Amino acid sequence: MAKIIAINAGSSSLKFQLLQMPEEEVLTKGLVERIGLNDSIFTIEVDGEKVKEIKDIQDHSEAVSMLLDKLVKHQIISSLEEIEGIGHRVVHGGEKFNDSVQITDEILKEIEDISYLAPLHNPANVVGIKAFKNVLPNVPAVAVFDTAFHQSMPEKSFLYSLPYEYYEKFGIRKYGFHGTSHKYVSERAAELLGRPVEQLRLLSCHLGNGASIAAIEGGKSIDTSMGFTPLAGVTMGTRSGNIDPSLIPYIMQKTGQSAEEVLNVLNNKSGMLGVSGFSSDLRDIESEAEKGNERAELALEVFASRIHKYIGSYAARMAGIDAIIFTAGIGENSTAVRERVLRGLEFMGVYWDPTLNQVRGKEAFISYPHSPVKVIVIPTNEEVMIARDTMRITM
Amino acid sequence: MAKIIAINAGSSSLKFQLLQMPEEEVLTKGLVERIGLNDSIFTIEVDGEKVKEIKDIQDHSEAVSMLLDKLVKHQIISSLEEIEGIGHRVVHGGEKFNDSVQITDEILKEIEDISYLAPLHNPANVVGIKAFKNVLPNVPAVAVFDTAFHQSMPEKSFLYSLPYEYYEKFGIRKYGFHGTSHKYVSERAAELLGRPVEQLRLLSCHLGNGASIAAIEGGKSIDTSMGFTPLAGVTMGTRSGNIDPSLIPYIMQKTGQSAEEVLNVLNNKSGMLGVSGFSSDLRDIESEAEKGNERAELALEVFASRIHKYIGSYAARMAGIDAIIFTAGIGENSTAVRERVLRGLEFMGVYWDPTLNQVRGKEAFISYPHSPVKVIVIPTNEEVMIARDTMRITM
Repeated sequence: MAKIIAINAGSSSLKFQLLQMPEEEVLTKGLVERIGLNDSIFTIEVDGEKVKEIKDIQDHSEAVSMLLDKLVKHQIISSLEEIEGIGHRVVHGGEKFNDSVQITDEILKEIEDISYLAPLHNPANVVGIKAFKNVLPNVPAVAVFDTAFHQSMPEKSFLYSLPYEYYEKFGIRKYGFHGTSHKYVSERAAELLGRPVEQLRLLSCHLGNGASIAAIEGGKSIDTSMGFTPLAGVTMGTRSGNIDPSLIPYIMQKTGQSAEEVLNVLNNKSGMLGVSGFSSDLRDIESEAEKGNERAELALEVFASRIHKYIGSYAARMAGIDAIIFTAGIGENSTAVRERVLRGLEFMGVYWDPTLNQVRGKEAFISYPHSPVKVIVIPTNEEVMIARDTMRITM
Repeated sequence: MAKIIAINAGSSSLKFQLLQMPEEEVLTKGLVERIGLNDSIFTIEVDGEKVKEIKDIQDHSEAVSMLLDKLVKHQIISSLEEIEGIGHRVVHGGEKFNDSVQITDEILKEIEDISYLAPLHNPANVVGIKAFKNVLPNVPAVAVFDTAFHQSMPEKSFLYSLPYEYYEKFGIRKYGFHGTSHKYVSERAAELLGRPVEQLRLLSCHLGNGASIAAIEGGKSIDTSMGFTPLAGVTMGTRSGNIDPSLIPYIMQKTGQSAEEVLNVLNNKSGMLGVSGFSSDLRDIESEAEKGNERAELALEVFASRIHKYIGSYAARMAGIDAIIFTAGIGENSTAVRERVLRGLEFMGVYWDPTLNQVRGKEAFISYPHSPVKVIVIPTNEEVMIARDTMRITM
């Protein structure tokens, strides 16, 4: 029995979840927002109710101190000694980390060294790690990387067709992201299928505001749609996914924007937002499409067809598949997207049931019992994976 | 009975083929190189032998005059009046042209207006058109566009997930190329299969120095791997195909190159050349791979696996397929590439015969007779398509 806290630190935010392990019971969860700004917001769940407090929180260390105080004050724990491990989500582990790892000074330095690969994310993750180290110096901490699960990809999957020295000199390759989620749902799928993950070929669709597809063979990621960064792959809420690379210089020339500005457009003004012209939120787009808005319908079709094509692509990659998994906000909840993605996959043995497909937000098979390829909705749980890895590595 | 000349004009070159139609018999073919430079080279086939002449040829008009003189001199035709039509390959037809068209002054202006979409190619094609117009003003000429066949793609295939106004204002969309070749082999496949093309779902792999895959449903292209430019899609001889778009700003920053310079690397120093480090020529790469060169083996695997994945992707796009077609230099001749591309497609009904797959450069089924999906090698013939369209449109 141990209490583990799972942390996801952003540049001005800190998401937390306290879990009782190995039961995987959530004791509380919450979020600190606007750290370092005025009127920071601290939210924590107490007995199923959200308790919110607004006050200035100067930095992540202060946020961590406040969090620990609240845990005791709200009697979620009786003393700080009960916390036996801290699991930190870290976005980028480069080629160095193919598994979670206990954080030492040396490891922390290596995570900082990789920051050039994820300049928006790793520095924030490091700030979170340091804040906990200040406040709870003796509690073991583990880094859980978004990229680690995909380090099993073979070179033919991760290498771009660029001059080879770009890989050697600049680390340019496919890393892939959402690894913690893809790993969680693939392990859960194996349980639900009642077969060892080592014998399965799974196609995992993590469809949230960011979206990625992974080909998971024998429990190992062998290909994934995101690339050097989370911009690549399928259409997303605001991200373009793959485009003809020639378009960057062309858009620069046509609009007078710099390369960085175009990249900003690709990350923040493209995807379903760009196509629909009004929202990156799938729920808005679905409801407008139902009302007959053609651009909303188009955004939905573009989004679903890109995922549909990746499924064919990764089925070919694994010479056929045993199951397709849908997870994350859209994957767990959007009946319409799943339907559009799955339509026309009968040729590869995917037979799904429109009635079962009505499910939202919970585990369920949505394929017919006789379907050679199973289709499963599995809510993802990155916090549980972080807590599991923290347990595994420190205890 | 008519003689039609099919022309492919580059900035300093002019490829020609004279065909007897409708028999589609090649009367002669040849090439003018180094136009506008010293020591231009004129090559023409006479009675199956190549006749070469080196002399300064100032411009394309002079090249055309010389070509016509040679045709008469070598008694391939007895007078210029025998030439009843000229078919010009034009790379980019934008959204304006979904079929070949007889060239008028207005059409020529429209082709020039589209040049911003293919700045390296369309201007050269226009020079070729004008040269023939100078020398043979009264012979009808037809423009045959590389993009036209793909104009049947629906919006969900051709639209990028970018701000929609980029499409409206700048024509940013997927156009696709090699259309003349994809159309030729799909029509030929229907003949070989003994079924109307309208009933078929065909997957065409045009694999040459440039390479593209097309999904052809009912005789119409509904998706293709090249994009706004011929850089996109699969790995090619020197072209990268798809990469994470974020890499362009990243490479610019790491190497100090401009966007245009990076684009040049992506077009000319990437692909199999970039991965292997020594050649863009598949024959070199295959022979080095056989000797155990790991980077050559890797280039081959990267190239084949990208095509393999597109096959799965486009099979999903068409909800299954009836046949896979291999064409162009590599598709027609490389046993090793076809084998690597086809391996592991049994789950979608592709059963191919390693013995039949030894074929090189001629029409052949390489699938087993019982295979639900047929696999066919078909040498492409863009010149015949150009001559056919020229006949169809002018006579």
